[in-house]
Amino acid sequence: MTDLAPRPGGWGSYSSPAPAPDRPAQHHPEAVSFAAGRPFEGFLDPGLTEQYLRSYRRRLADRLADASAVRLSVPQYGRAMGIIHELVAEHLWADEGIAVDPDAVVVTAGCQEARYLTLRALRRTDRDVLLAVAPSYRGLDAAARLAELRVLPVRDAAAGLDLADLVAQVRRARAEGLRPRACYLVPDCVNPAGAVLDGAARLELLRLADEHDFLLIEDSPYELVGDRDGTGPAALKALDGHRRVIHLGSFARAGAPGARVGYAVADQCPAEPATGRPEPLAELLRRIKRAVTVDTAPSAQAVIGGKLLHHNFRLRAARQGETRARQDNLRLLRQGLTDRFAGTTGIGWQIPDGGFLCRLDVPFAAGEELLAHCARTHRVLWTPVHPFYAGAEPRPQLRLSVGRLEQEELLEGLDRLAEFVHAQL
Amino acid sequence: MTDLAPRPGGWGSYSSPAPAPDRPAQHHPEAVSFAAGRPFEGFLDPGLTEQYLRSYRRRLADRLADASAVRLSVPQYGRAMGIIHELVAEHLWADEGIAVDPDAVVVTAGCQEARYLTLRALRRTDRDVLLAVAPSYRGLDAAARLAELRVLPVRDAAAGLDLADLVAQVRRARAEGLRPRACYLVPDCVNPAGAVLDGAARLELLRLADEHDFLLIEDSPYELVGDRDGTGPAALKALDGHRRVIHLGSFARAGAPGARVGYAVADQCPAEPATGRPEPLAELLRRIKRAVTVDTAPSAQAVIGGKLLHHNFRLRAARQGETRARQDNLRLLRQGLTDRFAGTTGIGWQIPDGGFLCRLDVPFAAGEELLAHCARTHRVLWTPVHPFYAGAEPRPQLRLSVGRLEQEELLEGLDRLAEFVHAQL
Repeated sequence: MTDLAPRPGGWGSYSSPAPAPDRPAQHHPEAVSFAAGRPFEGFLDPGLTEQYLRSYRRRLADRLADASAVRLSVPQYGRAMGIIHELVAEHLWADEGIAVDPDAVVVTAGCQEARYLTLRALRRTDRDVLLAVAPSYRGLDAAARLAELRVLPVRDAAAGLDLADLVAQVRRARAEGLRPRACYLVPDCVNPAGAVLDGAARLELLRLADEHDFLLIEDSPYELVGDRDGTGPAALKALDGHRRVIHLGSFARAGAPGARVGYAVADQCPAEPATGRPEPLAELLRRIKRAVTVDTAPSAQAVIGGKLLHHNFRLRAARQGETRARQDNLRLLRQGLTDRFAGTTGIGWQIPDGGFLCRLDVPFAAGEELLAHCARTHRVLWTPVHPFYAGAEPRPQLRLSVGRLEQEELLEGLDRLAEFVHAQL
Repeated sequence: MTDLAPRPGGWGSYSSPAPAPDRPAQHHPEAVSFAAGRPFEGFLDPGLTEQYLRSYRRRLADRLADASAVRLSVPQYGRAMGIIHELVAEHLWADEGIAVDPDAVVVTAGCQEARYLTLRALRRTDRDVLLAVAPSYRGLDAAARLAELRVLPVRDAAAGLDLADLVAQVRRARAEGLRPRACYLVPDCVNPAGAVLDGAARLELLRLADEHDFLLIEDSPYELVGDRDGTGPAALKALDGHRRVIHLGSFARAGAPGARVGYAVADQCPAEPATGRPEPLAELLRRIKRAVTVDTAPSAQAVIGGKLLHHNFRLRAARQGETRARQDNLRLLRQGLTDRFAGTTGIGWQIPDGGFLCRLDVPFAAGEELLAHCARTHRVLWTPVHPFYAGAEPRPQLRLSVGRLEQEELLEGLDRLAEFVHAQL
């Protein structure tokens, strides 16, 4: 029984999965910010909204004879399944190599709804539990609290996830009479650490899910900023031979966060306890969705659908410029940290090949107070990571985001950061 | 503990609050449909979407000096509160005479999310219960199941709600150690019966809420099709002197269902159990919303915001033509039923002054099977009402919707309906 009233460690301490980390920037406009949780804004263009809406209606016009059906299809109610589930499925194949039945795609009001629907569907009794690598995306913690699904933390590792600890947690849970339903993780550019689960670990994880009979929830909010030009590891769902993976995605990082469109790919078909009859998990998600938001704004879906059509389903290719800019920043950061901290005791960093979130290890606890001091005195912003470990103490770690920095800005920010860090040693 | 797996009377029997009643129309395109759960479609115009988006951006441009802020405010993330809460508050004052602090307005992903957030917030322990007039909107039943909030039915009456039974239910619940948190009702054009709670009953209801200390959840999905030209009764929230009313609204009936924008007005500030500190209910709703959808698609909010600005916040005036057409249909139906059924034993009807949903009482049980037969044989569609009474048997009642019928169509439909009804007598 969860009391939704704020209480220590409860909803009171709950903070929004929306980009709260940006707030200090408002108080220190002159500071260089490594704290942005959002992608580049320079690539967002409201003018495109109208263009995409037209593309989507053209597609409908080609498909439907009845003109009035076209006129109505956007403004009228959609279906809980979504009106662009087929387009999303084509996109997943084109960009991710994920082959999926469009009917298994549930279009949601942003990826957070996909998380909530999935967790709520998995929680059937008080004995059901979720495994999640700590630190986890804060939206996961929020959805789990609301779904009243207990979360058992799994240790993270440089590789992104400690597989031995995962198996140990599953065994311990079962020994306690609990039912580990699934393991949640963000295989690409794990927030906040930025670790990427390598190909071998992904295959081993799938094998373990089979062997120990649990599902995997692959959350890829950054899928489209990840470096999947063919060199990076494939999505878990693309390697999923036994339907162990529920894949959650978002178009928030695809240059259209204003549309709030995400999706869940759930092609599992578990036996339904009451009757033993197999029931598509996607159907269960839709049933729950109808109780929460009925359907996802067709107008917003149309914008995304139009964008997918406009780029022939290949958003990755459409965003090469942005990806390259981000990778230049990652390289610049790697070199810049080496120049400034190489050989300094207690200083280390982890910089992924994709995304825009990195980790800086320091020999002191880095919490909000120190951040405020740093912003005032050194005019540079970063993100404390302890909020990602629900309700823990400040940790000796900084999250650095290079998603929104020009190169000169980034270098200036690194000088200020070095000044700040050295002042703490 | 609710098991989300389908089971008799459980999620399995749950049907979508989306306009499922329309489905038979797909199988009988030649039939006249009194079954539409939606408003006129002739008034929906996708072309307006672009226009409204421009209006909204103009407003931002007037307000914000920084042009880039304008460019970003639509596509970037919004706030859980919503980006148009002030516009919604102005609209509520202009059209409904509801004076409310904009901060008490929580913009939601359609009215269904407002229902779910409210019920989830009210359910703090297993002893919390909700009172709801039966029949209720099916979306309420769905939200209550998902929130695991027990619903105690209150008898309905010609006036829309049996106040004596309401008090009796509250007393009985308390005697059983339960906590009646609120009473849910749709005061205008109650679905499916179409009853409108009169002014005196509204004042008495507010008095009872004070005397017996419970809240009222005023759901007005039809507020904008209701006949509130000054002659109809005011919204409960407009009469709410002691902050007893949580007001739920939607723009789905305002000609923009594709936008999926609704809202909850929650200006209560209950003492928060853990600390005894008063906490704005709107804040609690926002906290829960962050776990479900984070925020409502800013792009969709912008469309609605633009529409509100375009019409100087007065959607009622903007829709006079539609309202008049609907009222002509209601008059035509009243006359048409009198002509065909006056004096026929066991036949009665209830036709409201506003909205587009009416009730026809018949001396036989009217369920899906009979509807199918009627569609095949008499080529006219209507809606069985028993689904509105969760899981009950077919009832001697038909719901008639005149929201989408041309006058000739309506008359032809009435002839077929009379033929059908007389064939059952």
